Amino acid sequence: MSTSSVAGAVVAGQKRPLGPAVAAALRERFGDRYVTSEAVRQHHGRDESAYDITPPDAVVFALTTEDVAFTLALANQHGVPVIAYGAGSSLEGHLLAVQGGICLDLSRMNNILEVDAAEGIAVVEAGVTRKQLNEHIRQEGVFFSVDPGADATIGGMIATRASGTNAVRYGTMRENVLSLTAVTASGEIIHTGTRARKSSAGYDLTHLLVGSEGTLAIVTQAVVKLRPVPEASSVAVGHFPDVDAAVRTASEIIQYGLPIARCELLDEMTVMAVNRYSKLTLLERPMLLMEFHGSETSVAEQTAVAEEIAKQNGGEEFRWTKLPEERTKLWSARHNAYFATLQLRPGCRVFSTDACVPISKLAQCIAETRADLSANGILATVLGHVGDGNFHVSMVLDPTDQKEWETCERFNDRLVHRAIAMGGTCTGEHGVGLHKKRFLEAEHGKQAVDVMRALKRTMDPNNILNPGKIFD
Amino acid sequence: MSTSSVAGAVVAGQKRPLGPAVAAALRERFGDRYVTSEAVRQHHGRDESAYDITPPDAVVFALTTEDVAFTLALANQHGVPVIAYGAGSSLEGHLLAVQGGICLDLSRMNNILEVDAAEGIAVVEAGVTRKQLNEHIRQEGVFFSVDPGADATIGGMIATRASGTNAVRYGTMRENVLSLTAVTASGEIIHTGTRARKSSAGYDLTHLLVGSEGTLAIVTQAVVKLRPVPEASSVAVGHFPDVDAAVRTASEIIQYGLPIARCELLDEMTVMAVNRYSKLTLLERPMLLMEFHGSETSVAEQTAVAEEIAKQNGGEEFRWTKLPEERTKLWSARHNAYFATLQLRPGCRVFSTDACVPISKLAQCIAETRADLSANGILATVLGHVGDGNFHVSMVLDPTDQKEWETCERFNDRLVHRAIAMGGTCTGEHGVGLHKKRFLEAEHGKQAVDVMRALKRTMDPNNILNPGKIFD
Repeated sequence: MSTSSVAGAVVAGQKRPLGPAVAAALRERFGDRYVTSEAVRQHHGRDESAYDITPPDAVVFALTTEDVAFTLALANQHGVPVIAYGAGSSLEGHLLAVQGGICLDLSRMNNILEVDAAEGIAVVEAGVTRKQLNEHIRQEGVFFSVDPGADATIGGMIATRASGTNAVRYGTMRENVLSLTAVTASGEIIHTGTRARKSSAGYDLTHLLVGSEGTLAIVTQAVVKLRPVPEASSVAVGHFPDVDAAVRTASEIIQYGLPIARCELLDEMTVMAVNRYSKLTLLERPMLLMEFHGSETSVAEQTAVAEEIAKQNGGEEFRWTKLPEERTKLWSARHNAYFATLQLRPGCRVFSTDACVPISKLAQCIAETRADLSANGILATVLGHVGDGNFHVSMVLDPTDQKEWETCERFNDRLVHRAIAMGGTCTGEHGVGLHKKRFLEAEHGKQAVDVMRALKRTMDPNNILNPGKIFD
Repeated sequence: MSTSSVAGAVVAGQKRPLGPAVAAALRERFGDRYVTSEAVRQHHGRDESAYDITPPDAVVFALTTEDVAFTLALANQHGVPVIAYGAGSSLEGHLLAVQGGICLDLSRMNNILEVDAAEGIAVVEAGVTRKQLNEHIRQEGVFFSVDPGADATIGGMIATRASGTNAVRYGTMRENVLSLTAVTASGEIIHTGTRARKSSAGYDLTHLLVGSEGTLAIVTQAVVKLRPVPEASSVAVGHFPDVDAAVRTASEIIQYGLPIARCELLDEMTVMAVNRYSKLTLLERPMLLMEFHGSETSVAEQTAVAEEIAKQNGGEEFRWTKLPEERTKLWSARHNAYFATLQLRPGCRVFSTDACVPISKLAQCIAETRADLSANGILATVLGHVGDGNFHVSMVLDPTDQKEWETCERFNDRLVHRAIAMGGTCTGEHGVGLHKKRFLEAEHGKQAVDVMRALKRTMDPNNILNPGKIFD
């Protein structure tokens, strides 16, 4: 992360500095968990986006929900911004302190409070990471399914409504959070939802907070769903003459009702990059990487059906494996696609974008997007969770070249409007943050965005919760 | 439905009559679709609850979203209540015009606007019923999964966050609505969500409206998910020595990861009632009625695993069938359980309640509930969607006997508090309406209910949208 890229400094409203009274109160309560050192502030003023670092005035390390409540009540009284921070892995500028204020680091709230494998739930603090949770429950016959790539915190994943490779079968964070403990702007502790799997009791505050990017309340605990580890798994790979054939295969697999657990597209350029980076010899054609979960019989049957559908669509070299080491090798190649892309042009940076369209429009959307990349001379890999209609374009660019940035930004604008015109969304899983604010009305219409703004004003009248994000 | 039951007349705020200006404007726009006749008003002043009829001042039959927008803008200007009406099948007093005003009947907005079987979506107007939709798409290889028993409208099912027998596999309305067109209190038309399967673009207005019982906006159109018709289905029946063994079986099936499509418990009394009513000879013991969807092989395997789990829990006479006529017979027996219950005591009425708890608490909750029924001499059947932890108690009582009503109401209170104490909810699928308002704070806490009230005030400042429901 550079502090001098041409992505530039971010302006999103007036700075609202901390002030001596707030600083003193925080120092008194938090002692050495109240930090204003340059290094710590710099570290907390960035995420994985290309924006310049925009540090907060101070960082507070919370240990309890009460710490969060204390901080919010104080900040609300003085009109000081508060930004919740987990693992710092978000991608759209969510964590930048564009109006200054307090960064509330929840990473030390990382206790796994309860695991009930029979019930299929875990109760976790917001700072627990998904890998930590999965490591903790490894012997229990269950797993936490949401897998956004990065080892994000559960709180951060709730904030961005994260998903990833398993969502086609197990859902996104939207489907995997049962209930929340959160703190409102005024410092009230609220509990949303229950441990029951369904409820019709009043407004769905849980789903209002999932995806709200820390702008309506700060989540401190969650009850999340755990899934039974399947008896058997297989991973299959198929190569296709073009992206259209690969996407058609994915779409027909879904339509067939096959409960596919993962269905990832890697376009030709991605396969090439992955081969180089991970020293593999995959056929350099658009490729589907699939995973099937179930009983031994069911996995064998699902794999066979997928193979047949792939072949009907011109798929070649279809092969599958149940060997754990082979599966791990293929999935780590997929998960390293970001680094593989970066290596295509040493010294450059990746500008990653995210869109999601109805599956029936996906092939067309990717084809038009590829043509657009070519026409504009942008080096990029395209890959995606095609079972959901979600895909990413990772552009490799020279961060010091203003013209390249502008070319990529204009491409990104066209991509988003293309997705929206096809009935899709400007972001399938990364969130709005700073970078996608300008598309919100195009996607939802002014009236719906006005409703969102009204909800924001109601829940955060002094605009202290992650101000300048989602909308101005 | 009697108008003189001891459930009594409902008071929930001041009456706010229509007034001549509003009446004239409605008459002018709607002509003979503006109705004030006694019969029509009476018909629209009730649902399937035990409350006395509480008619609106007038009924408007909307044909378009613009009709709804016109009516709401007018009503909002004059502070007149508006209650959306679909099939009249709700159960908790949702439709009663407790403050008078306009009943906005959406049942004529029953166009199926688009079906895209490959994409797995249908675009429907709010007045389309679930049976109408399923009939319409019967040849397309897809079905709409949410099945609350009654032939409710999609709009009504959205309002109450309905679910039913298929929810254990395919989810409730929460998981089956992709996007909505709705009209706000001030008459603005908003669109929420897109056709993409997932999105991280801003607040989840779709899920804020699903389950809001017409108190935040009126839904006029929805994009709903359709599921592929499975290649094969089987229905299995097992009988158990006690409810505990039956529920343990359901719970272990879920924990095993078996993708069971339906998993219904009928307690001993329900089986007896169903036998009498549907002239069946089912063993009069607690019974599980299960359905499995998948390929031929997968269904056979799922059925075999379920049988093994049932036997380990003392299940007897486990049998299964793939014959459509046998399956229909068993499921219609289940769906007629309400009428079967009613026939246990001729001339009486059913007081049906609904709770949902974590699955690991379900057996205990039902056992304590059965003991409570016995101790209080209440004749009732207990049945439920046990794969979700959701169950219903249908009490049969003499509607003219004040003492019986009170006994049942007190029982219902204890049942709800028992469910909440176990981490559950006061309603799994029926909604709050008038009848469960008093439990909302016990379930969510005052702070969370205050947030709900604040959202209500923001979206409906003049309290015209179904006033007196969910909270006072």
